[in-house]
Amino acid sequence: MRNSTRSDVDPFIVMDVMEAARRAEEAGRRVIHMEVGQPGTGAPKGALKALAGALEADPLGYTVALGLPALRRRIAQMYGEWYNVDLNPERVVITPGSSGGFLLTFTALFDSGDRVGIGAPGYPSYRQILSALGLVPVDLQTAPENRLQPVPGDFAGMDLAGLLVASPANPTGTMLDRPAMSALIEATHAQGASFISDEIYHGIEYEAKAVTALEVTDECYVINSFSKYFSMTGWRVGWMVVPDDQVRVVERIAQNMFICAPHASQVAALAAMDCDKELQANLDVYKANRALMLEGLPKAGFTRIAPPDGAFYVYADVSDITDDSRAFAAEILDKAGVAVTPGLDFDPVRGGGTLRFSYARATEDIEEGLQRLATFMANRG
Amino acid sequence: MRNSTRSDVDPFIVMDVMEAARRAEEAGRRVIHMEVGQPGTGAPKGALKALAGALEADPLGYTVALGLPALRRRIAQMYGEWYNVDLNPERVVITPGSSGGFLLTFTALFDSGDRVGIGAPGYPSYRQILSALGLVPVDLQTAPENRLQPVPGDFAGMDLAGLLVASPANPTGTMLDRPAMSALIEATHAQGASFISDEIYHGIEYEAKAVTALEVTDECYVINSFSKYFSMTGWRVGWMVVPDDQVRVVERIAQNMFICAPHASQVAALAAMDCDKELQANLDVYKANRALMLEGLPKAGFTRIAPPDGAFYVYADVSDITDDSRAFAAEILDKAGVAVTPGLDFDPVRGGGTLRFSYARATEDIEEGLQRLATFMANRG
Repeated sequence: MRNSTRSDVDPFIVMDVMEAARRAEEAGRRVIHMEVGQPGTGAPKGALKALAGALEADPLGYTVALGLPALRRRIAQMYGEWYNVDLNPERVVITPGSSGGFLLTFTALFDSGDRVGIGAPGYPSYRQILSALGLVPVDLQTAPENRLQPVPGDFAGMDLAGLLVASPANPTGTMLDRPAMSALIEATHAQGASFISDEIYHGIEYEAKAVTALEVTDECYVINSFSKYFSMTGWRVGWMVVPDDQVRVVERIAQNMFICAPHASQVAALAAMDCDKELQANLDVYKANRALMLEGLPKAGFTRIAPPDGAFYVYADVSDITDDSRAFAAEILDKAGVAVTPGLDFDPVRGGGTLRFSYARATEDIEEGLQRLATFMANRG
Repeated sequence: MRNSTRSDVDPFIVMDVMEAARRAEEAGRRVIHMEVGQPGTGAPKGALKALAGALEADPLGYTVALGLPALRRRIAQMYGEWYNVDLNPERVVITPGSSGGFLLTFTALFDSGDRVGIGAPGYPSYRQILSALGLVPVDLQTAPENRLQPVPGDFAGMDLAGLLVASPANPTGTMLDRPAMSALIEATHAQGASFISDEIYHGIEYEAKAVTALEVTDECYVINSFSKYFSMTGWRVGWMVVPDDQVRVVERIAQNMFICAPHASQVAALAAMDCDKELQANLDVYKANRALMLEGLPKAGFTRIAPPDGAFYVYADVSDITDDSRAFAAEILDKAGVAVTPGLDFDPVRGGGTLRFSYARATEDIEEGLQRLATFMANRG
């Protein structure tokens, strides 16, 4: 059968690493996984308990497209608790993960051929989803001195229909503070473009609280998820906050595209929001892991890193070692037994000289991984 | 904020009926729901039990994009049992409901501006998802003498990039037999277009087994779901079967658009496939309901109906009574306390003269509903 042009999606380069890791494990080798973008922990116990109860009590049919009203209210309440933002629950839309949020956002805002700015390096699926929808992703080459976050100068005069930012960002973990966020929003609106804020790593932050775009403006789309801080990746449930006048538009698209987010996941997510103690314990592990990484990576020879403000990644500039991050990642897996992600997945232009290390797993794995990396680099000379 | 042209999605007209029904129920009235498109039953008990076990044993993180291998194998096995079709499990793709299947299919096959034929009347979201993706839905006005299913003559010379059929169909419940399916596939391929078969109501059939497009050709996309026969609407899990050479394309789109279908739902779905006894009991209820409908609707005065081969709907031609099905549905709700779906949701051209009655709920509701409809029509005169 003939395929569309828009279906010509780049493969994730890390998939080769993951397949090689799987084969190595099948052959009996122990691999340390620093390539994965998800917590090693599952959903909080309170979430599982709530769901187990619902399984016996409720047929769990379709919910309304905007999601369970109680969950929308609870999320709005969280904006008060986390950011001191007073949010109308009617503006909260439950989505099938942040993936669903991107599909809804891009469809609501952009027409075929519209240009949407995204920071490079950045989450690879931004680019692929935009292309799959017939839109044009525009990579903004962010500067190391801006900690690889976009600034207004990066897209001046670019005729964008939208700008999408992420803070904390994947793969860098760097954040936008309030002045930086405000400047981006102002420059975007001045260009007549729509502002989209991916806040999926909020809650996983180390030195300062992440800033939501909603502290600055109501005229934006915010995308978030239960996958990271709430440790519910496989549940495929997230949310958006949209302006008042956008709720009906998004609702109609959601009714047709998704019908609803998974009902069981919504029930679990609502309960997860009251599991602070367990979630903070997960965060303590990330904190310990981050400290180990910030000490161990430079010692091993990965010296060109910026301390991440949030998320659970370190993005390392290895351009003094290689311009082929794919081959280098394969070598690290082969010789050190550590799986890492080649930067090419995040930045097609400069990613040949970068790697992403994830520290989302157990602390003993991080310790072992850092030791292996140090030995590998010492032997490599 | 400015919205895209593609976001201009029609509202579901039935939403007005559902909102009016909700208000009536809030005011203490008992409403009989013949508007809903989902079983009143929940997931089979064996599915819930399997999930309850998994909740305690597995963190339920992301699955691979194509879905749990065991579920893909079990679905392939079902094609042997149900249709005597020998299917390679590698061709089965697990999706977030049939909704996810449509998004993947349309993205894999069609580019902005491509024309895709769909039967009118038909499932409203076909049209809306196509438009939202920047594609052009082409309504084929099907003929009553073809039981409102498309035939090759309906799209001859129409320059389609694809044809999407449904059997059993929503809203009519009519099916394509093997010669009819073959003729459509042949005519579609002769036009150089892709053939897509929506088989979401398979398993819910009354006189003969539904025919899968895979009995005729491997060169097609088949879309199915656990929502209807397996009674798992809110779980958002379904599947596709695609040609061998399409698996990698679909996989890459799915990785980016969805990451994966909900893990918990996949676990439940796998177990649901071994719950035949409970699922057949659900089917016995539909059978009894259908018999009541086929007797009761004509008695009440809705005489222009074709017996449905499958699904749980009766589509009635009421053009001798009204040309405003929206107003008529509102009147039926108001006077009879029965919620039904105006045909305009399924056929913008001729649907002013049609209604869809669903019989997916409990038999006592169907009996009560038919009695109310008879009284209403008698009083209406």
